[in-house]
Amino acid sequence: MKRYSKNQLQRYPIYLKYLRQLKEQGYTSVSSPLIAKELGYSEEQIRKDLQLVSNEAGRPKKGRSIEKLIETLENFLGYSSLANALLIGAGHLGNALMNFPSFEEMGITITAGFDADPSKIGTETNGKKILDMKELPNYIKEYKAHIVILTVPANVAQKVCDYAVESGARAIWNFAPIHINVPGDVVIEDVNMASSLAVLWHRYLNLKNID
Amino acid sequence: MKRYSKNQLQRYPIYLKYLRQLKEQGYTSVSSPLIAKELGYSEEQIRKDLQLVSNEAGRPKKGRSIEKLIETLENFLGYSSLANALLIGAGHLGNALMNFPSFEEMGITITAGFDADPSKIGTETNGKKILDMKELPNYIKEYKAHIVILTVPANVAQKVCDYAVESGARAIWNFAPIHINVPGDVVIEDVNMASSLAVLWHRYLNLKNID
Repeated sequence: MKRYSKNQLQRYPIYLKYLRQLKEQGYTSVSSPLIAKELGYSEEQIRKDLQLVSNEAGRPKKGRSIEKLIETLENFLGYSSLANALLIGAGHLGNALMNFPSFEEMGITITAGFDADPSKIGTETNGKKILDMKELPNYIKEYKAHIVILTVPANVAQKVCDYAVESGARAIWNFAPIHINVPGDVVIEDVNMASSLAVLWHRYLNLKNID
Repeated sequence: MKRYSKNQLQRYPIYLKYLRQLKEQGYTSVSSPLIAKELGYSEEQIRKDLQLVSNEAGRPKKGRSIEKLIETLENFLGYSSLANALLIGAGHLGNALMNFPSFEEMGITITAGFDADPSKIGTETNGKKILDMKELPNYIKEYKAHIVILTVPANVAQKVCDYAVESGARAIWNFAPIHINVPGDVVIEDVNMASSLAVLWHRYLNLKNID
């Protein structure tokens, strides 16, 4: 399998979003320089990224077919097939994610939520049931829901993650603001808001210094 | 001002979280190799990152003072002073963020939410009022709330962002799943869930191929 850097992988959904916008606006082809200019990347980067996933080269003057690029990226990103995911931690953020409209477009369906709070168990959010943590191992097996979205408080995140892994989770999408360790046969990816805010904040301070 | 890469800036809050955990557990000093091992970075990276923000070198055998490192990182990340922020788009995600307990720890206070939906205007979430979009320019001026958290749907994100910038916003924290253009004197940082999911998904598929 080809090797992709993390930064590279993060760029593909951004290309896809942009290409879908162009398609909606009625465009049929696009050049690497235009994508580069609009999204603020270098032309070389765009060309390299697109060559890695697509066999088709851009035609000089005509550019690339937007339709074909969209299809290629959707396949590459797994958007064309649906995998089951479950969510642990039906608090404010968990609820927001269970109501998030775009996950199915991204190839995952959240089939249920899990929580330790008895008052939440048995309720529903956006048509998805909140289940008891005890049911996790059977649920993962039955629904092949190997992707687990973790939206629990930081202080219990490692413990809950360990339990999810024991129960059969193989991919953890971690929204808890803390570093979690997983075994080598499990993958984890953090959505770290503090990290994102650090970048914004630093750039903002730089901006103020420029003035 | 020193130059920091985006990846580097993203690491500092992760170090800080980890150091706070160590402090809670009663530790007083830590070595770069230990941080590297626990967080999965290289020793060289840790040493380089910490040297950039701290004048103090690690003492061989004794390591670095956790207390001092925490203080250094908190100052560097702007956690020790509070800036006002406002949020636009009081939907599910917006509500979750207005209830997020950790923003004040990270140096920002969400002072109010804004929405275009008349049924939401005048309501409160976590003690923060939802205001009419028309009040945005005066509000930004009065509360010096130059940081704007954008949690609106993708199809209106650019338009809403333009209005926020015209109204005085200087830093946009964008949660809408779309690329937004801002003028050169405004900074923007995306929390792109699709990008994060792409990384998780690709690693997961790689994992399955290994089996």
